[in-house]
Amino acid sequence: MSRSILVLNGPNLNLLGTRQPEVYGRTTLPEVERDCIAKGKELGIEVECRQSNHEGTLVDWIHEAKGKHAGIIINAGAYTHTSIAIMDAFNSVELPVVEVHCSNIHKREEYRHLSYVSKVAVGSVVGFGTFSYILAVEALANHLAGRK
Amino acid sequence: MSRSILVLNGPNLNLLGTRQPEVYGRTTLPEVERDCIAKGKELGIEVECRQSNHEGTLVDWIHEAKGKHAGIIINAGAYTHTSIAIMDAFNSVELPVVEVHCSNIHKREEYRHLSYVSKVAVGSVVGFGTFSYILAVEALANHLAGRK
Amino acid sequence: MSRSILVLNGPNLNLLGTRQPEVYGRTTLPEVERDCIAKGKELGIEVECRQSNHEGTLVDWIHEAKGKHAGIIINAGAYTHTSIAIMDAFNSVELPVVEVHCSNIHKREEYRHLSYVSKVAVGSVVGFGTFSYILAVEALANHLAGRK
Amino acid sequence: MSRSILVLNGPNLNLLGTRQPEVYGRTTLPEVERDCIAKGKELGIEVECRQSNHEGTLVDWIHEAKGKHAGIIINAGAYTHTSIAIMDAFNSVELPVVEVHCSNIHKREEYRHLSYVSKVAVGSVVGFGTFSYILAVEALANHLAGRK
Amino acid sequence: MSRSILVLNGPNLNLLGTRQPEVYGRTTLPEVERDCIAKGKELGIEVECRQSNHEGTLVDWIHEAKGKHAGIIINAGAYTHTSIAIMDAFNSVELPVVEVHCSNIHKREEYRHLSYVSKVAVGSVVGFGTFSYILAVEALANHLAGRK
Amino acid sequence: MSRSILVLNGPNLNLLGTRQPEVYGRTTLPEVERDCIAKGKELGIEVECRQSNHEGTLVDWIHEAKGKHAGIIINAGAYTHTSIAIMDAFNSVELPVVEVHCSNIHKREEYRHLSYVSKVAVGSVVGFGTFSYILAVEALANHLAGRK
Amino acid sequence: MSRSILVLNGPNLNLLGTRQPEVYGRTTLPEVERDCIAKGKELGIEVECRQSNHEGTLVDWIHEAKGKHAGIIINAGAYTHTSIAIMDAFNSVELPVVEVHCSNIHKREEYRHLSYVSKVAVGSVVGFGTFSYILAVEALANHLAGRK
Amino acid sequence: MSRSILVLNGPNLNLLGTRQPEVYGRTTLPEVERDCIAKGKELGIEVECRQSNHEGTLVDWIHEAKGKHAGIIINAGAYTHTSIAIMDAFNSVELPVVEVHCSNIHKREEYRHLSYVSKVAVGSVVGFGTFSYILAVEALANHLAGRK
Amino acid sequence: MSRSILVLNGPNLNLLGTRQPEVYGRTTLPEVERDCIAKGKELGIEVECRQSNHEGTLVDWIHEAKGKHAGIIINAGAYTHTSIAIMDAFNSVELPVVEVHCSNIHKREEYRHLSYVSKVAVGSVVGFGTFSYILAVEALANHLAGRK
Amino acid sequence: MSRSILVLNGPNLNLLGTRQPEVYGRTTLPEVERDCIAKGKELGIEVECRQSNHEGTLVDWIHEAKGKHAGIIINAGAYTHTSIAIMDAFNSVELPVVEVHCSNIHKREEYRHLSYVSKVAVGSVVGFGTFSYILAVEALANHLAGRK
Amino acid sequence: MSRSILVLNGPNLNLLGTRQPEVYGRTTLPEVERDCIAKGKELGIEVECRQSNHEGTLVDWIHEAKGKHAGIIINAGAYTHTSIAIMDAFNSVELPVVEVHCSNIHKREEYRHLSYVSKVAVGSVVGFGTFSYILAVEALANHLAGRK
Amino acid sequence: MSRSILVLNGPNLNLLGTRQPEVYGRTTLPEVERDCIAKGKELGIEVECRQSNHEGTLVDWIHEAKGKHAGIIINAGAYTHTSIAIMDAFNSVELPVVEVHCSNIHKREEYRHLSYVSKVAVGSVVGFGTFSYILAVEALANHLAGRK
Repeated sequence: MSRSILVLNGPNLNLLGTRQPEVYGRTTLPEVERDCIAKGKELGIEVECRQSNHEGTLVDWIHEAKGKHAGIIINAGAYTHTSIAIMDAFNSVELPVVEVHCSNIHKREEYRHLSYVSKVAVGSVVGFGTFSYILAVEALANHLAGRK
Repeated sequence: MSRSILVLNGPNLNLLGTRQPEVYGRTTLPEVERDCIAKGKELGIEVECRQSNHEGTLVDWIHEAKGKHAGIIINAGAYTHTSIAIMDAFNSVELPVVEVHCSNIHKREEYRHLSYVSKVAVGSVVGFGTFSYILAVEALANHLAGRK
Repeated sequence: MSRSILVLNGPNLNLLGTRQPEVYGRTTLPEVERDCIAKGKELGIEVECRQSNHEGTLVDWIHEAKGKHAGIIINAGAYTHTSIAIMDAFNSVELPVVEVHCSNIHKREEYRHLSYVSKVAVGSVVGFGTFSYILAVEALANHLAGRK
Repeated sequence: MSRSILVLNGPNLNLLGTRQPEVYGRTTLPEVERDCIAKGKELGIEVECRQSNHEGTLVDWIHEAKGKHAGIIINAGAYTHTSIAIMDAFNSVELPVVEVHCSNIHKREEYRHLSYVSKVAVGSVVGFGTFSYILAVEALANHLAGRK
Repeated sequence: MSRSILVLNGPNLNLLGTRQPEVYGRTTLPEVERDCIAKGKELGIEVECRQSNHEGTLVDWIHEAKGKHAGIIINAGAYTHTSIAIMDAFNSVELPVVEVHCSNIHKREEYRHLSYVSKVAVGSVVGFGTFSYILAVEALANHLAGRK
Repeated sequence: MSRSILVLNGPNLNLLGTRQPEVYGRTTLPEVERDCIAKGKELGIEVECRQSNHEGTLVDWIHEAKGKHAGIIINAGAYTHTSIAIMDAFNSVELPVVEVHCSNIHKREEYRHLSYVSKVAVGSVVGFGTFSYILAVEALANHLAGRK
Repeated sequence: MSRSILVLNGPNLNLLGTRQPEVYGRTTLPEVERDCIAKGKELGIEVECRQSNHEGTLVDWIHEAKGKHAGIIINAGAYTHTSIAIMDAFNSVELPVVEVHCSNIHKREEYRHLSYVSKVAVGSVVGFGTFSYILAVEALANHLAGRK
Repeated sequence: MSRSILVLNGPNLNLLGTRQPEVYGRTTLPEVERDCIAKGKELGIEVECRQSNHEGTLVDWIHEAKGKHAGIIINAGAYTHTSIAIMDAFNSVELPVVEVHCSNIHKREEYRHLSYVSKVAVGSVVGFGTFSYILAVEALANHLAGRK
Repeated sequence: MSRSILVLNGPNLNLLGTRQPEVYGRTTLPEVERDCIAKGKELGIEVECRQSNHEGTLVDWIHEAKGKHAGIIINAGAYTHTSIAIMDAFNSVELPVVEVHCSNIHKREEYRHLSYVSKVAVGSVVGFGTFSYILAVEALANHLAGRK
Repeated sequence: MSRSILVLNGPNLNLLGTRQPEVYGRTTLPEVERDCIAKGKELGIEVECRQSNHEGTLVDWIHEAKGKHAGIIINAGAYTHTSIAIMDAFNSVELPVVEVHCSNIHKREEYRHLSYVSKVAVGSVVGFGTFSYILAVEALANHLAGRK
Repeated sequence: MSRSILVLNGPNLNLLGTRQPEVYGRTTLPEVERDCIAKGKELGIEVECRQSNHEGTLVDWIHEAKGKHAGIIINAGAYTHTSIAIMDAFNSVELPVVEVHCSNIHKREEYRHLSYVSKVAVGSVVGFGTFSYILAVEALANHLAGRK
Repeated sequence: MSRSILVLNGPNLNLLGTRQPEVYGRTTLPEVERDCIAKGKELGIEVECRQSNHEGTLVDWIHEAKGKHAGIIINAGAYTHTSIAIMDAFNSVELPVVEVHCSNIHKREEYRHLSYVSKVAVGSVVGFGTFSYILAVEALANHLAGRK
């Protein structure tokens, strides 16, 4: 199987590192994406990164990942809590998904506690700032390798 | 009035027949659309079909249907349960709407039991696989004919 | 297998067409039953029709349908929302069930949104007045034929 | 219009006066019915009384009242809290209904606070033991007379 | 014991008969009070009537009734649904209370379904317009006479 | 006091052993009734058995048990969860009641967790297939003997 | 700081004035936008107006407003009640926001009572038809001037 | 019709400007009232202002406004969230009402999110400090002029 | 700072000791007030006592306490559970508050479990009959002394 | 397989028979344990009995039962309603469990209606005082014998 | 009866005064215990103090208190909100209990508002830092003396 | 600061790898602990591992970690969902905490969705089988290094 994975970022994550650094840290999205690609290289996995503020575009990209990528890492931002469409897209393509959040969503507002992504993800890495993405790459690589 | 109707399909329905056939059946979306057109022809009604994964695009298309189509059949997919915008679009154009679902949403997860589309639809046909669409064409044709 | 189906009507549906026509239309129950039988004949299926205001009687009839009919169409009226006994009866006889409602129950009072019948039905046809029954006969015929 | 009214009693009310007198008083159902008839005579209204433990039978009797009685007084007993079918029967026959309870249901268990009968009744008389029936006869007579 | 009773009316009931007659009827509060006094005379009971828009004043008057009146009839208006203080006042004076409402509160908005008065009342007469007061006088008289 | 007890079975239990054996076991209702009678004989108690799919009929039979039987064992089937009327009937006749279920209702759907019968029963035996009935006969016998 | 503000309109508001005038009034969106620009000119503020039916597009525009506009007025239409993404976009750009609605959303359906926009807005102007926009321009101008 | 309006302030608003200025601003109630009167003069409307901590007094004043004022502006303070009596008073006098709050109540505690005043108001102006009152005078003036 | 404190009692507490002694004890309010004054004297604190059944009057008195008393002890009676206005009054005057109840409100009805006073109080003394007041005087004195 | 079973008792059950006999009966725990052992002997099963007030100790003992006992009877006392850890322990050891309660927990406080033990038990015997244990031994024996 | 009382402290209270002093104050547990003993001496009562982080140990100690102590003061820490076992232990030993908390639990997180200890306590002293314990000793002494 | 961390495992995790491998994987707890120690060594961090089924013991160990370890990794098992005491212990010692779960708790039963540990943790690693522990060691090491 393909050794490539897709890293998807949802709404407002294009602003990562430049806004509300007390919540999300100071690393920018291009930096995060660069780090993910580097970590992937280290683990022998190709990493492709995309970001959109549009729910429909995220659904389109998940569909396109089928047959092209071996798994998906997603920080769905606010759509985490409201989008059944993205959850259904993951169900449709049947690729392993790892959920990422920079902030610990369980310490924040009530309406951020529900995650539709969690319901279809292998697992989640939550709360470690942008380092969550690096852990997610490791987690997905390990999962794809069928270890443990 | 126009004897043309619009059949709208929402997110992930482009994958119909190719993914999770145990839930949604094996008929593909192009086949469903072809069947709807055929059924329409049988009933003297022109049928136009569109699909999008974008909520905003579905809203745009509902607006455009005004003055062009006599009614709309919609399988809004996951947006059924989350989109007040689509419901409001139907309210705005005041066209008769028939709701369709392949699977019986009332037997599935709790969050699939609420349908905003139901609140503005004439009626719903739910659970008969892709045959639901054919019944919906009949139902809308009958409604437009002002029978019963 | 038998090519006969049973059409059951529950409480207050004996008054169909004669009371609250703005909600339920003007077709009477005998007319509906006659139309179902005609539609069945067209599809090569024998249709038997019964109505009762008694929950227990409906349970009895569902039991009796086993081995005699190939499937059941039911408009359980108000028992739709309160009768676990009728739902269990369907579970017991393991016949395919199609649910029918003349009015769109999802547009009505909150307590009419829950349907115990939906939980065991193949699917539902809701909101098209008495034409819902005709669509239901088609839907059940299609289901029994194992199509789509 | 007819000057006759129907007094219906639901499940367990046949035991009135002989069981749990601390809750329901010591007057028996035949005595209550006799008092209602007497009160009706005083007000120039014929009173017919029936009791059943069967929900379907109560629905049947409400249907039969149409065209025969000018209004209905009902103590639906436990069906007060569970029967949408009885409520729908009243909606179907469009006769004025007065609800009666011997005990003050609002002081009892939570599940006795909801009354489906209240939703279709002109009004309710609750908590005055069997004297509630006498007040209900007066209330219905006054309503039928179109006073106040 | 004293054969006098107190009829209390709460907020906005001073406007009875002059506002929203489609909900509350056309009889004014002075007319209702006159009718209650007349009905009391007929039953050998003296009736005193008071109205206030102030929750605290109603509490004061309930306290004063102790030792002076044998029972209280109250239409607490909007305080019915919000005032634990009035309920506690009734608990404190331990006089029998009969609750009255002109409109059928159970058919109105959800927040009008809860009545704190009901929790301490002997019983309620609800929905018969201003005739509810007359029935309440009868009900309280009967209760005080220890009949039934 | 009489040493006779009544074993009541509610809706769909006439099909016991012949339908859904994976849930309810393979013993038929006549076999269960025969076993109960045998167990009763062993304990010196006469056992009478009845089954109905009609809520009203069960209420009637509970009334008739008064003065004839010393206690009642009931598997109210689906009415367990919906019938306040049956609960009230037990309250009216004041006979000791033992509740029985073949399946463990607490492991099943949410709406099967509430039991109105439990609120008036001495106790419950739940989940041991048809052996639950035998334990219930022992339990009621022990209760009637006033032991422990 | 810039004396320019952005007026955003969400889904279905392009139809303002042409559909459901009994709810939203008869002024069209171009007319509203023209009035906002005029009011802005009067107050020495430049006003830019945009409308989209796409949630993602609204998020994009809010991002772009940073550094270009001094504040935002938004009528998010149906996204008011469902879009955490738009709320997060406002949090990201840290511009003052004023919420507008033509209709009084608190008098409408339950699901229109929650506003995610309210949680990040300075304040709201709700219910005054299209005049709400004019008041919002004044309110935002006053806020930006740091008055009161 | 009269061109006079009433500005009502409820509990604790007499302390406006002198307590918790971080929540309510530093303008005192007399200053706010002076500004409202000035704004009214500018718009050709007479403005009368009153404040009370007593729910009953507010109800009395709303009654008195009938026939004297053309509309009412109210900041009901804490009674906003608890007083059905004030809401009913507005229903009784049938005058247009505009709701005002200095703070954005939707950003505060859960129990401040429900407003009974909203249910009867034309609209609300919320969150702009004491400038909310000035906007409310404009809004009511515009409403009374029958514009837009 | 002033060494004077205010002891406020709300609705129905004027009847303390003379009504429902099984719930509230047999000590009358004047006796309680006398004991509080004596306890205050012992601790070098002047104690002033007031009681009202009127919510608005309690709010007025809390306002007046500002600048006159160093702290407030309140048994708000039923207003404990319903009055946001009293809570806001405490917020406005920013004086330390100690909450008192004779009965243990957490053992009573559900609607007595919520206390708005608790949300602004330093602490509460609940359930020790009228001795709760004495403990409250000690608690407030200790708090004012800045100990512990 | 082993013919030995473990009878576990949770918190406060060491006081059985000596405290609150009106709720739990007068038989002491040693007597109950002696009766269980006797009943086991009668059925050819060895019975070991243990009690602890410590949740962790109960978890330890359930672990130890694996490979040593063929099944477990448990009265988890208050931990029934709060301990997911005990439930998980049963899941881990995969031994058949029978739940016992002396009192009818469904007639008691709301928070005693949820049983985590029920979710993993074969079945429950509830409400027959200490005789419940004897019935549980029979039930488990019958289950282990694979009968019915 | 014994004039000795037991002061119990639950989980994390061993750290009192050394951790989060802004919430719990700076007095250590040994200091609090020393103060309780001193206060007891002053009132002629012997005071014994114990602390444990183990729910089961607290249950054990409550059992042991029976016959040895006349009453118990408890700060159950986090077990206040989760332990039905401790509540049942108090029910079992039937000793008077006084509940103590240093912080005002009603001002903290929602899940700290429910107290199982409150349901069995004579009363509670909440929010006065470690001085709460001293007030509790007084309260229990007064209760044991049967005063007020 | 110390470069040592504590890895805590709660109830039933001693059985890891030997029970329900389809949920929790086949790696045993000693193997997991060995892997954590190895990973720590790789990162220059000493790792100490402990497991207990006792909530109180876990609280004790968290207290002891203060001053000895630089951070804690915990898989609290079932106590995750029920133990406020463990959460408070973390609050007391103010050490950084990383939460671990082998299974994806958000895909399991409703009562496993709430985590008290999450409310005090830096972040969580959930769903990657025993590899979750390795990721957690990395996450905590990165956090302690103050990176990102």
